[in-house]
Amino acid sequence: MKLVTFADAAGSRAGVLLDGGRVLDLGAAMPPARDMIALIEAGPAALAQVRALAANPPADAVLPLASVALQAPIPQPRRNVFCVGRNYMDHVAEGDRTRGITQSEMPKYPQFFTKAADTVIAPGALVPNHADVTKWLDYEVELVAVIGKAGRDIAKEKALEHVFGWTIGNDVTGRDLQRRHGQWFKGKSLDRSCPLGPVIVPREDLDASDIAIGLKINGQQRQASRTSKMIFDVKEIIHQLSAGFTLLPGDVIMTGTPEGVGYAMQPPQTLKTGDVMELEIEGIGTLTNTIGD
Amino acid sequence: MKLVTFADAAGSRAGVLLDGGRVLDLGAAMPPARDMIALIEAGPAALAQVRALAANPPADAVLPLASVALQAPIPQPRRNVFCVGRNYMDHVAEGDRTRGITQSEMPKYPQFFTKAADTVIAPGALVPNHADVTKWLDYEVELVAVIGKAGRDIAKEKALEHVFGWTIGNDVTGRDLQRRHGQWFKGKSLDRSCPLGPVIVPREDLDASDIAIGLKINGQQRQASRTSKMIFDVKEIIHQLSAGFTLLPGDVIMTGTPEGVGYAMQPPQTLKTGDVMELEIEGIGTLTNTIGD
Repeated sequence: MKLVTFADAAGSRAGVLLDGGRVLDLGAAMPPARDMIALIEAGPAALAQVRALAANPPADAVLPLASVALQAPIPQPRRNVFCVGRNYMDHVAEGDRTRGITQSEMPKYPQFFTKAADTVIAPGALVPNHADVTKWLDYEVELVAVIGKAGRDIAKEKALEHVFGWTIGNDVTGRDLQRRHGQWFKGKSLDRSCPLGPVIVPREDLDASDIAIGLKINGQQRQASRTSKMIFDVKEIIHQLSAGFTLLPGDVIMTGTPEGVGYAMQPPQTLKTGDVMELEIEGIGTLTNTIGD
Repeated sequence: MKLVTFADAAGSRAGVLLDGGRVLDLGAAMPPARDMIALIEAGPAALAQVRALAANPPADAVLPLASVALQAPIPQPRRNVFCVGRNYMDHVAEGDRTRGITQSEMPKYPQFFTKAADTVIAPGALVPNHADVTKWLDYEVELVAVIGKAGRDIAKEKALEHVFGWTIGNDVTGRDLQRRHGQWFKGKSLDRSCPLGPVIVPREDLDASDIAIGLKINGQQRQASRTSKMIFDVKEIIHQLSAGFTLLPGDVIMTGTPEGVGYAMQPPQTLKTGDVMELEIEGIGTLTNTIGD
């Protein structure tokens, strides 16, 4: 099942992608699940109800996909987007090489930072080139875990029970800002720098522990890896992030990017106006955004 | 003028501290300013109206201070609390000494990180000792700028026009977590680790560029400096933070802590259950919180 948030003249609401270019309008079919965070908070019984509706969609709650605009599945996270840096071995190594380090040391603990909540934008939306503030705009494809059940001090073996589902995130970054400010928030929180989507696949529908993850720029493959190559897997990330810190339904956790980012290429590549970024994760879909002015 | 957020049986709302142990209830006197963010968003005309009300408070909107509970002036920031690390020269030097560095290099750019929005707690509220997750809990007194007017790419000479007012923040930190995770979010976002308050002083009422800032633990002075010793002053912080990134009314910006933190003392000091933290900034007041279990 593929859950979406969409908008038309009647506003924004949650839905389910159906085959044949249709979308099930949960705002009409199941008003308590009007938005994605409400659906998540309504818990497993509500999700089961959505599955039943999607299997036999009421005709008056089905819309042509072409008549609506997909939004980010969580258009307005209630807190900053949580991120993990340097979480794929080959990405740590490529970053170190740009600094002349040939023997990489792997992080012993996950490096957590955040992107501001309202950097999130929809599939298809333009990402500004931010030419006034960065000379070095870069992409990062990431598997995203959406939290379903609140928790704190979550044990590793219980961690996946707290995941509602999976989506794709693009951690667009101003590399020069990231480096010169030391802490990464500044380079990671430019306006509209967090494309998210296009769908959330419920955790029960997808084992995300070893799936293909990749990114193309203008059709050219730049990143191609598997989620099994994470240094800290999703269970470990949730365990460590929740130590003394309460995770909430609807929280968005980006789990790090594999090798192949622009700044580590020879010669280094920066994103330019008009560049089309296609991010693909097996079993979830493709998230496409273009660099604007 | 000293603005507060307070709560009683009728809920939470904005107010003004009056002399004689009284508080003006803006929820009653001026309903559009029911909460602090609404008051901030209502702009300079609303603030002028609050001043007029505070000068001649309507009797039916005045409450005994003892009958209400002060909350953080912005109890629920809409986005993470923005912070600047290593922003006082003598604090950079004391931190470097703990790592054996005797010749400190000053940061060339502000180091921005965040604390989760819901780490904010009220004056007087308990801060958990978080003994399960950190062995090294520490305090940091900071001058806090509250944003009044939205803006992006804000010029340094216009930056103060975007400040609504000033308050005090305690950037409670798990030092071991801060260090081992590399990026600081984890050590800075333990639950209830951001005491804020007790009041907001409007920017027009206080020149915050050279005022005394200090902190006592159990009555013993630990930190004592002046805001003029910041490496990056408030204008520079707002200028750089807003580069390509839109600041919003109600955003909370902590501007760094001076020397005297526990981890740099000889021998290093950690906060323990029962410790009373008193943070004082000239012209704003005193923010007191205690470490709980």
